[in-house]
Amino acid sequence: MTDHAFITGGAGFVGSHLADRLLALGHRVTVYDNLSTGLVEFLDDARKRPGFTFVKGDLLDGGALAKAIKGCDIVYHLAANADVRFGLQHPKKDFEQNTLATFNLLEAMRVTGVGRIAFASTGSIYGESVVIPTPEDAPFPVQTSLYGASKLAGEGLIAAYCEGFGFQSWLFRFVSILGERYTHGHVYDFYRMLRQDPTKLHVLGDGRQKKSYLYVADCVAAILTAVERAKDKVNVFNLGAEEYLEVDQSIATITAHLGLSPRRTYGGGERGWIGDSPFIFLDTRRIRALGWAPQVDLRQSIVRTVDWLKANAWIYERRA
Amino acid sequence: MTDHAFITGGAGFVGSHLADRLLALGHRVTVYDNLSTGLVEFLDDARKRPGFTFVKGDLLDGGALAKAIKGCDIVYHLAANADVRFGLQHPKKDFEQNTLATFNLLEAMRVTGVGRIAFASTGSIYGESVVIPTPEDAPFPVQTSLYGASKLAGEGLIAAYCEGFGFQSWLFRFVSILGERYTHGHVYDFYRMLRQDPTKLHVLGDGRQKKSYLYVADCVAAILTAVERAKDKVNVFNLGAEEYLEVDQSIATITAHLGLSPRRTYGGGERGWIGDSPFIFLDTRRIRALGWAPQVDLRQSIVRTVDWLKANAWIYERRA
Repeated sequence: MTDHAFITGGAGFVGSHLADRLLALGHRVTVYDNLSTGLVEFLDDARKRPGFTFVKGDLLDGGALAKAIKGCDIVYHLAANADVRFGLQHPKKDFEQNTLATFNLLEAMRVTGVGRIAFASTGSIYGESVVIPTPEDAPFPVQTSLYGASKLAGEGLIAAYCEGFGFQSWLFRFVSILGERYTHGHVYDFYRMLRQDPTKLHVLGDGRQKKSYLYVADCVAAILTAVERAKDKVNVFNLGAEEYLEVDQSIATITAHLGLSPRRTYGGGERGWIGDSPFIFLDTRRIRALGWAPQVDLRQSIVRTVDWLKANAWIYERRA
Repeated sequence: MTDHAFITGGAGFVGSHLADRLLALGHRVTVYDNLSTGLVEFLDDARKRPGFTFVKGDLLDGGALAKAIKGCDIVYHLAANADVRFGLQHPKKDFEQNTLATFNLLEAMRVTGVGRIAFASTGSIYGESVVIPTPEDAPFPVQTSLYGASKLAGEGLIAAYCEGFGFQSWLFRFVSILGERYTHGHVYDFYRMLRQDPTKLHVLGDGRQKKSYLYVADCVAAILTAVERAKDKVNVFNLGAEEYLEVDQSIATITAHLGLSPRRTYGGGERGWIGDSPFIFLDTRRIRALGWAPQVDLRQSIVRTVDWLKANAWIYERRA
C-alpha cells in the first residue's frame, strides 16, 4: 500500500533523503519547507519523480499548513532548528521553530483528520544520562540544552495527541546523522576549517567527547522500518550505531582521508559548549529487534560525508 | 534572610496560601495574576500585610511581566491552566497558558537577571507510570494529557535555562492539593452536585481510580523546605502523601461528613476521562529526606475542604 507522505523540513538533510526514498518506493510525497535552512537543490532528484509536490511554507503559518496537509496519510516531521550549540544565543528560536511549530502541526493534523506522525527527536533529550548506553526508558532525564527541551516538549505533545485524539506516532531519538547533504555539525565545521587552512584545526572541548553517528540512508531505513512494523499508539525508538568515537578519533579519520596533518588546538573542558553532552551513546536494541541494522559504519559514514563536502564546496558559500 | 518573592498565579488556590505564608515569614511578595481563575478575595489576608504588592497582569504580556519581575529574588511559578480534564476541548489553552507562559517567564527572568525559580509541575507528568509509587527518576514517561505535556515542556525549559543561563530551580510534581480556597477538581465537583441534589451523585469512571492528595499548608511547607535546603542546580521533588484513596473512599468520607447517603451512578471504565490516570501515587522519600512530612492526612484534608466549600458557597456562583 502506498501512502501520501507529508514531510516537514523535506528540503533539509534527512528530509530530502526520506523524500527520495519514499518516492522510489512509489509513495506520493509533499515536501513542506520554509527553506530557512533547507536547500531546493536537495530536491533535484525528487522533482524528477511523479507524485512529488513542493510547498514553500512555514509551520508558523497555520492556514497554509492546514491547506497543504489536507488529504495526506502520514506526516514525517523533520523540520526544526537543528542547531544545538547556538541555542543560548537565541532562546526564542528553539521555542518557536521546534515547540510551537510542532504544536501548530498537530493542530493542523487534528483539524484535517491526519492522524499518523513520525517525529525526528534527539538523543540530546537524555541530557547527561546516568545510564549508558541509554535505553528509551532511561530514568526521567534533566534537560541540558534548549534544543533537547524543545524536542522533549514536542514528544510530550505528540504523545498527548495520541492519547487524546487517537493519533499514532513514531518518535525517533537520533544521534548525529552523517552522509551526503550533511550541512551542519562538527564534521562540517572541521572540514570548513581545513579547507580554509589545512595546517591547523581548532577543537571545542578536550577532544575526548564520545559521540555516536548514523549514516543518513541507515537513518531513513530505520524510520521506514519502524513506521511499517511498530504498531503501538506511541512508538519510541533510539536510532544510532552500536559504536562511538571520541572527537579526536573522528578528526583522525577525516585528516587521514584527506592526507592532512593539521596542528590541533583545543578549547578545553570535557564539553565542547554549554549543553554539550560528553558522552552520547544510545541503546538501539529496540529498533534492531524489528530487523533493522545499520549498513555503514562510523568511519565510513565520516569518509562519505567528507567526500560529499569536498565535491559540494558550494554548500559553504550558500551557508556562509 | 528575607527575599522578595514573585508569585505567578498568586491569587489562585496554592499561590495565595504561599503568599500568606511568605508574608508571615517576613518576606516581600509580589503577586502577578491575570485573575482568569484566581480570585482577589484570596488575597484579602495578604493585603493587610506590609511588603505585599498585587499586579494584575498576564504571562503572555512580556513587557508588563518584565517590569513587574525586575528586582525580585525568586519566582514561584504557580500560574497555569490547571484543568487536566478539559484539555482536549481547547488544546491551545494548555499550550499558551502553561508552555508558552513558562517560556515568557523564563525570558523575563533572564532579561532582568532573576535566576531562581520554583515551579508547580504535576504528578500527571508520569502519564501511566509502570512504577508505583513513582519516584522522580522513574522511567522516561509517555504523556497521556495535554496538561502533563505542557508541564513536561515547562520543566524541560526550566532545566535548560539552569544549564545554559546559570538559573537554579525547584520543580515540584504535585498530587491533587486540597484545603481552603480549593476551587476545582473532583471533591469540588462532588460537593457541587450534592448541594444541588443531596440524594444522588454521578461519578466519572468506575470509582476505583486511586488518587493521592496533599493538604495545601503541607504543600506550601514542602515548597519552602525544598527551596531552603535543596542546593542543586535543578532540584526535582514529588509532593504527596504516603497514602492514597479510591475515589469511592473519598466520596464516602465526604458523604459521611455531610450526613448524606446519595445514590451513586457511575460513568464506567477505569479512567474518569481521556487522559485520567487510574492510579497516581508518588514516591516522596526525596522530600521527606529533607525533614518535611505532611501534618494533615488524606481524610482530614477532604473534610477541611468540604467544610470550607460549605462555608464559602459563593465560590460556586463565582465559578459558574
